[in-house]
Amino acid sequence: PTALAVLSSDALSSVAYATQEILLVLVAVGTAARWWSLPIAGAIALLLFIVISSYRQTIQAYPKGGGAYIVAKDNLGQYPGLVAAAALLTDYILTVSVSVAAGVEALSSAFPQLLAFEVPIGVVMVALITWANLRGVKESGRLFSVPTFLFIGLIALLVAVGFIKAAVVGVPPGEAFIHPTTGSETLSLFLILRAFASGCTALTGVEAISDGVPVFRPPEARNARITLTWMGVILGSMFLGITGLCYLYGAVPKAEETVVSQVARQVFGTQPPFSLLYYAVQFATALILVLAANTAFSDFPRLSFFLARDGFIPRQYANRGDRLAFSNGILTLGLFSSALIVIFQGDVNRIIPLYAIGVFTSFTLSQTGMVVRWWRRREPGWVRSIALNGLGAFATALVLVVVAVTKFATGAWAILVLIPALVWLFTRIKVHYSDVASQLSLDHSQYVPRRLKQKVVIPVGGIHRGILQALDYARSISDDATAVYVDIDTQSTEAFIERWGKWTDVPLVVVPSPTRSILEPLLDYFNAVESTCQDSVMTVIVPTFVTAKWWQNLLHNQTAFLIKSALLLQRRKVVVSVRFYLDR
Amino acid sequence: PTALAVLSSDALSSVAYATQEILLVLVAVGTAARWWSLPIAGAIALLLFIVISSYRQTIQAYPKGGGAYIVAKDNLGQYPGLVAAAALLTDYILTVSVSVAAGVEALSSAFPQLLAFEVPIGVVMVALITWANLRGVKESGRLFSVPTFLFIGLIALLVAVGFIKAAVVGVPPGEAFIHPTTGSETLSLFLILRAFASGCTALTGVEAISDGVPVFRPPEARNARITLTWMGVILGSMFLGITGLCYLYGAVPKAEETVVSQVARQVFGTQPPFSLLYYAVQFATALILVLAANTAFSDFPRLSFFLARDGFIPRQYANRGDRLAFSNGILTLGLFSSALIVIFQGDVNRIIPLYAIGVFTSFTLSQTGMVVRWWRRREPGWVRSIALNGLGAFATALVLVVVAVTKFATGAWAILVLIPALVWLFTRIKVHYSDVASQLSLDHSQYVPRRLKQKVVIPVGGIHRGILQALDYARSISDDATAVYVDIDTQSTEAFIERWGKWTDVPLVVVPSPTRSILEPLLDYFNAVESTCQDSVMTVIVPTFVTAKWWQNLLHNQTAFLIKSALLLQRRKVVVSVRFYLDR
Ligand SMILES: [K+]
Ligand SMILES: [K+]
Ligand SMILES: [K+]
Ligand SMILES: [K+]
Ligand SMILES: [K+]
Ligand SMILES: [K+]
Repeated sequence: PTALAVLSSDALSSVAYATQEILLVLVAVGTAARWWSLPIAGAIALLLFIVISSYRQTIQAYPKGGGAYIVAKDNLGQYPGLVAAAALLTDYILTVSVSVAAGVEALSSAFPQLLAFEVPIGVVMVALITWANLRGVKESGRLFSVPTFLFIGLIALLVAVGFIKAAVVGVPPGEAFIHPTTGSETLSLFLILRAFASGCTALTGVEAISDGVPVFRPPEARNARITLTWMGVILGSMFLGITGLCYLYGAVPKAEETVVSQVARQVFGTQPPFSLLYYAVQFATALILVLAANTAFSDFPRLSFFLARDGFIPRQYANRGDRLAFSNGILTLGLFSSALIVIFQGDVNRIIPLYAIGVFTSFTLSQTGMVVRWWRRREPGWVRSIALNGLGAFATALVLVVVAVTKFATGAWAILVLIPALVWLFTRIKVHYSDVASQLSLDHSQYVPRRLKQKVVIPVGGIHRGILQALDYARSISDDATAVYVDIDTQSTEAFIERWGKWTDVPLVVVPSPTRSILEPLLDYFNAVESTCQDSVMTVIVPTFVTAKWWQNLLHNQTAFLIKSALLLQRRKVVVSVRFYLDR
Repeated sequence: PTALAVLSSDALSSVAYATQEILLVLVAVGTAARWWSLPIAGAIALLLFIVISSYRQTIQAYPKGGGAYIVAKDNLGQYPGLVAAAALLTDYILTVSVSVAAGVEALSSAFPQLLAFEVPIGVVMVALITWANLRGVKESGRLFSVPTFLFIGLIALLVAVGFIKAAVVGVPPGEAFIHPTTGSETLSLFLILRAFASGCTALTGVEAISDGVPVFRPPEARNARITLTWMGVILGSMFLGITGLCYLYGAVPKAEETVVSQVARQVFGTQPPFSLLYYAVQFATALILVLAANTAFSDFPRLSFFLARDGFIPRQYANRGDRLAFSNGILTLGLFSSALIVIFQGDVNRIIPLYAIGVFTSFTLSQTGMVVRWWRRREPGWVRSIALNGLGAFATALVLVVVAVTKFATGAWAILVLIPALVWLFTRIKVHYSDVASQLSLDHSQYVPRRLKQKVVIPVGGIHRGILQALDYARSISDDATAVYVDIDTQSTEAFIERWGKWTDVPLVVVPSPTRSILEPLLDYFNAVESTCQDSVMTVIVPTFVTAKWWQNLLHNQTAFLIKSALLLQRRKVVVSVRFYLDR
């Protein structure tokens, strides 16, 4: 049951927004069209049943956890795998954005004073979850299961009391009865499909259990399958119950209050002590949504680790030494998801259209992968298995098309552009890493260690402790060290040469500068020296100050900086900063 | 006369805005208060006479050019010199901002279509002047004198025609007669002083001739004095003439048109061919103002060169190799002056209150310096000289107080804060440079060249061409080179050790990492090696990739970057990047 609680928070929490998304589309026609939410919810429940049956088979086939990336890559090949990966990465980001935004809306429905601060509250929530994951939350299942059970219990209570109250006492007049409206849209098949597509967000997150089979107690696969079934039953009941209540009580989507909040307020009333139950529902909703967001913070870094290990995204996500690699994933997720919250002003209704595309893409690829797998293996019972997964693949593909078409204009286009763009980027990165590997490869190398001689050049602009230290260093790496000085005016050059001879026997070359420029004559000299290097390598030693305070750096090192910047673009010369530390 | 033209553009161009600033204060009382502009202009002309007489003596005493910084430093000491320098630097910046903004307003008075683009036009003008000075305008005096003579001629024509027309034909009704207004302020001594303080911007720039004595033909001092007197007469006449015309023709400051433009429009009429003279006046005004701004672009870098040479501002302003140093001054001036134009939305009336403070501070310090100088030297005629400069010092100090008090609230406070802040900064920088010089000094140094041995350490994460190149480099600087590898998992470490032995005989040290961190064990190892360095120096060679395209860099070098960043904070270790160039 703990595994149920932790792995199903993402799936169950969708109840907080799925019904509202259906109603939002319908009331554009008019409050009278609300009736359609009932058959639509029924269809979604049926879809849920199909998907759950399909995933029960994935659990059996992948007892070590079958994420869509692995299943698609294993059975369909590299490109479908990458499409699934791109879909999953966007899905994880959107899970955080949608869940946190919905959590904030659950709170601000109860406390309208928070309405003006939804965006900052959402960003702070993401920041806190990010921080907790960077620190490394010990996934204390027991603690994390409390919000889930609280949520299930309170929603069950809400649905039960709601229906009983409606039957016995009658329904207090809700928004739809007080202010019936007629919208500008007309009821069409397209609109009903759009409402259905919106409601399909109810299914987001159901894949979590099949991804996380190894966390179950043995026999893992069996326990996971039982849990998945239970989760499907609970999710379906809660979703149907909430949708029914919303219809009965006349809840209508409003900017300032969610439909769940409206229903809970009417069912539990506004008088203590029962109104406390209303606040409990809102709190539990916000809590489970935060928990749902939190699950993405382990999924995202894990997937990006696999992708980076395979060379499809930057190595930073899979560095040797896991800790830093996971931190990069966590930070990336936190940044993108809070950016979405800011861009969409924390409005769930505006982020949702982006959400379902990625989820159903991964569902479809994952189920199709399973079909191919059964076909290839032909293990006993493969016909039944193909039928089940085939039905799942077909249904989710159909929904994917419906979502893509009906939600295209309101945001789905962005994901339809993003996923191929990401796949292209993945392959470009992979190509680059392969290129590098072949350039670095020793496979056909004739390498024999070489005894190179050092030619050392030290540009100097004066003579002081810092310079002498650099000269000592130069002598330590080679006997062939030369200092070079740019002659800007004859008088100071003569004085300098004399002083030089007093302090050191490192040979000094003075180069003229007709244009009074420092840099050009130095670079010319470096190139001249380099052209004499056959069996030797040239090192330029740049004496550099390290100031005691950072701002003092603005007062020094300009010539050193210019020399180093210019040499950065030149091959073969090695540049060494010998640092002199200033104490004040 | 060429010298007159070039050196007096700053002073003469003030005519374009000084009268307007007086009227702006007065019409806050009402259009009837305009009469006061006449006695105020008279007082300013008297002040001009005093200041000119005073500067004639500066020319005599400093035939090589007596800027306020030099005069104040010579005669009053370091701090007054620095105050003068701070005042002058702000003055130069404001000269550019005010002149360019006023030039743009002269144009947009004639072409109201430009009104909406005043800020971008002003910024582009500053950018062009900056660019021309960076390229190095050959100060072709002859070419530069055209706008000045054009401006003098056209203003003289305007004043002459204006007064004759008023006497003969009568005055066409101006703004003050059509729409007489009564403002909310009452006429008080404070307000009249405020109007006077605003008008004192007419004196800004008169010091230029005494700063630039050496450019005159011999006998320089004599020619400069004659020119200064002429300039004073011309400036005084133009200023009085314009102020008189503004009174006669009833010009009133308006956001969309300058008073000079209003008067010129009325005097020359709106019918061709005479209206062409109106456009000529506006163009000539804009041109001389741009020229005035341009003068600051030689003054600012010159002063900042002196200040940098003396160690009061960063050395970048006085690098060996003048060209770059002057470029830094030019860029600094361009940046600050265009920033002011943006901040004040190109509105001359809002920038002006900042302007006069710096100018009169430098006037006062310069004249006071002259008084002290005469007193110390007691050359023949010193009593008369002290009297003249004393009067100048007293008058300008009085005006400084008046400006500071009456303009305090509208912006002068900023300069009154800024000047001491700059002086503080100058002295802090000077202290730092002195500290550094003593830390670097060889005066009491017992230096003898040391033969240091090299201990070289190369952190490696694999073995490939880039690593082998780094190993060759390491061997070229020392026989004591060791590679170090962090053991993250035993299996790959064993494989690595075997591969290592096949390719190189550089000793390899494997360090364990219980926390799976890469960086910490490396740093620990470096420190362990360093602690064994007695007569040797330690060099860490970091193999680094240089990618073919910049974005590819995001895909590499993270460990190298981390190592280098961590070592940046550690003394005594020298870090060398040996770069391996990738071609794709
Ligand atoms: K769900
Ligand atoms: K979800
Ligand atoms: K999800
Ligand atoms: K002036
Ligand atoms: K001026
Ligand atoms: K000036």
